[in-house]
Amino acid sequence: MTRQELISQIKTKKSFLCVGLDPDMEKLPKHLLHEEDAIFSFNKAIIDATHNYCVSYKPNAAFYEAHGLKGYQSLIKTIEYIKANYPNHFIIADAKRGDIGNTSSMYARAFFSEMKADALTIAPYMGSDSVKPFLTYKDKWVILLALTSNEGAFNFQTQRISHLDTQKELYLYEEVLKTSKQWGTEENMMYVVGATKAQWLEEVRKIVPHHFLLIPGVGAQGGSLEDVCKYGLNKDIGLLINSSRQIIYASSQQDFAQAAAMEAKKLQEEMKQFF
Amino acid sequence: MTRQELISQIKTKKSFLCVGLDPDMEKLPKHLLHEEDAIFSFNKAIIDATHNYCVSYKPNAAFYEAHGLKGYQSLIKTIEYIKANYPNHFIIADAKRGDIGNTSSMYARAFFSEMKADALTIAPYMGSDSVKPFLTYKDKWVILLALTSNEGAFNFQTQRISHLDTQKELYLYEEVLKTSKQWGTEENMMYVVGATKAQWLEEVRKIVPHHFLLIPGVGAQGGSLEDVCKYGLNKDIGLLINSSRQIIYASSQQDFAQAAAMEAKKLQEEMKQFF
Repeated sequence: MTRQELISQIKTKKSFLCVGLDPDMEKLPKHLLHEEDAIFSFNKAIIDATHNYCVSYKPNAAFYEAHGLKGYQSLIKTIEYIKANYPNHFIIADAKRGDIGNTSSMYARAFFSEMKADALTIAPYMGSDSVKPFLTYKDKWVILLALTSNEGAFNFQTQRISHLDTQKELYLYEEVLKTSKQWGTEENMMYVVGATKAQWLEEVRKIVPHHFLLIPGVGAQGGSLEDVCKYGLNKDIGLLINSSRQIIYASSQQDFAQAAAMEAKKLQEEMKQFF
Repeated sequence: MTRQELISQIKTKKSFLCVGLDPDMEKLPKHLLHEEDAIFSFNKAIIDATHNYCVSYKPNAAFYEAHGLKGYQSLIKTIEYIKANYPNHFIIADAKRGDIGNTSSMYARAFFSEMKADALTIAPYMGSDSVKPFLTYKDKWVILLALTSNEGAFNFQTQRISHLDTQKELYLYEEVLKTSKQWGTEENMMYVVGATKAQWLEEVRKIVPHHFLLIPGVGAQGGSLEDVCKYGLNKDIGLLINSSRQIIYASSQQDFAQAAAMEAKKLQEEMKQFF
């Protein structure tokens, strides 16, 4: 999917909501557990109920891999289902991959050619040649971790880097933004910036004013939509705000899909004011 | 597998060789391509031929995921095969995972409970809560990226971190070593340090003298066994040296397994002198 197509979807729907598909067996409605593929049944119902309110889905690979081959199949089926039924939705495989060049090429093939996701989350630690193989795919996206939503983000991402030449100090995540934005363009790279660190978005926007940002951590992790929009919006909206648990586990009863739709709708209505 | 069991295997075999199982369809012997599961057939032959010369196997997840569900199944089968036939070999799932706590828990389940690997490679960028869930599994190992073998390692891993309190500067990879070694022990954590940066091992050993190190990059990537041993060995050997392409693609003909065995034997014989 191109940047223009994504922006067009966002404007049409007045929504920049991404629904995170993190199916946890222990939280799935009990009545689904006897189904042949409970995870897929759950996702299908969530997707059918929420698609009008969001522009993107983000299956989190770990929740599928945790169930071995069957789980991996559920992930593939989920992406196929979205592609077939809601082809205008931007599909993010949240898998945090990244390795040396020849290995990253294999991951690119796995997620872009085999699974046909539109975007993949990537960890930046291994640097340029771990990211560039993903950028050779037309209309596919790298979403690079910059400043994540978790507590552990403060271990390394906010360490101060000293530049001998400029005598300037900056945070590691700022260095990641500055260096990596030269590897791709605003048409094939986005960044992860956690909603729990919304005020830092002001600094992020100084480095990447035009890039799209994927913002996890609204809801269950404590981030606020208001704050994220205050500091993160740009002229093309430029945000995809992810919510997982708040939407998909809104109810664990028979009405789980309707409850998810209501939560997604609520978020979409909050988003409307920014158009 | 415990540290003591691993050391015992290493001393018995006079080998600290890890064979990387990175099956690339384009490099597989042509006569295998008509097989039902060419990747598994290839791995099985390589494993049967090399097991006497190595103590560990490291399947690289990307090379399996690149083939979708079928590839994922080949990965599972490969690990099952090693477990069933060579239970004393240390199995490293080289998958470079790492995410927020609840997601890392799912990855831990995927690789330790479902696949039954002994160890998993993890990227450190997301910090403590992205690593700790893996450390709750008894006799399982986190192998954290410190200084990788690729060119991109110089983008961030070798940036200088400034500590305001101590007025000292250190490299990011040193900060990763210093911080993360407090999360686990020498019984459940190892580090990746690339063979292409062997002389840096002297500094690494000042921070983690007793930990095992997984050393990729010997052979195809240009690293030297001599140099790695010179700077990296400790009293328990403390190294797992990985070789992938040099061994598994030693021949692309009918004799590929024997050729792989010869290469593995050659490396093991070079290793002997260090006992």
